[in-house]
Amino acid sequence: MEQCVFCDIVAGLAPASMIYQDDKVAVFLSHQPVTPGHTLVIPCEHATHLADMDEDTGAHLFRIAMRMNAAIRHSSVRAEGVRLSLSDGRAAGQVVMHTHLHLIPRFAGDGAWSGAMEGARHASRAELDETAAEIARAYRALYA
Amino acid sequence: MEQCVFCDIVAGLAPASMIYQDDKVAVFLSHQPVTPGHTLVIPCEHATHLADMDEDTGAHLFRIAMRMNAAIRHSSVRAEGVRLSLSDGRAAGQVVMHTHLHLIPRFAGDGAWSGAMEGARHASRAELDETAAEIARAYRALYA
Repeated sequence: MEQCVFCDIVAGLAPASMIYQDDKVAVFLSHQPVTPGHTLVIPCEHATHLADMDEDTGAHLFRIAMRMNAAIRHSSVRAEGVRLSLSDGRAAGQVVMHTHLHLIPRFAGDGAWSGAMEGARHASRAELDETAAEIARAYRALYA
Repeated sequence: MEQCVFCDIVAGLAPASMIYQDDKVAVFLSHQPVTPGHTLVIPCEHATHLADMDEDTGAHLFRIAMRMNAAIRHSSVRAEGVRLSLSDGRAAGQVVMHTHLHLIPRFAGDGAWSGAMEGARHASRAELDETAAEIARAYRALYA
């Protein structure tokens, strides 16, 4: 298999500000957040496209996404809304070829181009780690 | 409860070009497609926000969305990619306050503003019914 940065993150070979991981899915912050707290939910096992992920994993991934949606709202991110977005295939704008669901925190009047990366900026690892820890704390408070 | 157009569609009280329905979810075409074949997957039971939908229904909804993603690609719509998008809350751009997942067919270089309704146009019921029938046929061929 070609080099895959998300597989490397799951294996602990590439850095990421991890929020949650189990045997099926991993949740970490985008290093190019459209808004602070921009979160990615991915299957641990490589799946290039949505069709390459088995349905049980997909069902679990969406369950965890629903919980993360709540955690992002209850954390210090204090999202007023969340845009969930998954680009399946290059024609849909997929860039990293390991299927992933974006959770983009939204705020009234933020004007965020929601669903693409045009509003993205670089965030420092320290900043990302702090936000990840805060979302993880909210997640545990809600679901532990 | 206030009037809800998606609840009316589920109950058969409002028109829709239905692709699939079971006891938990309904799948029909948007009457304002961003691209032809723009599909909505909703829970049958009213849920204003994602947090109002129980997790089992959410897991099932995503399973069906994965199958619809395949059906849209294999149908006469011949999508080259699909953008899945769910706007949770008004701050995220949610307009119909019954949670719904968009599946927006994408084509290389379509330039579609993917995830919002700015590229939307009106489609006739006849046109929608024909497209819905074609996606439903592809769905049955894949999963019946």
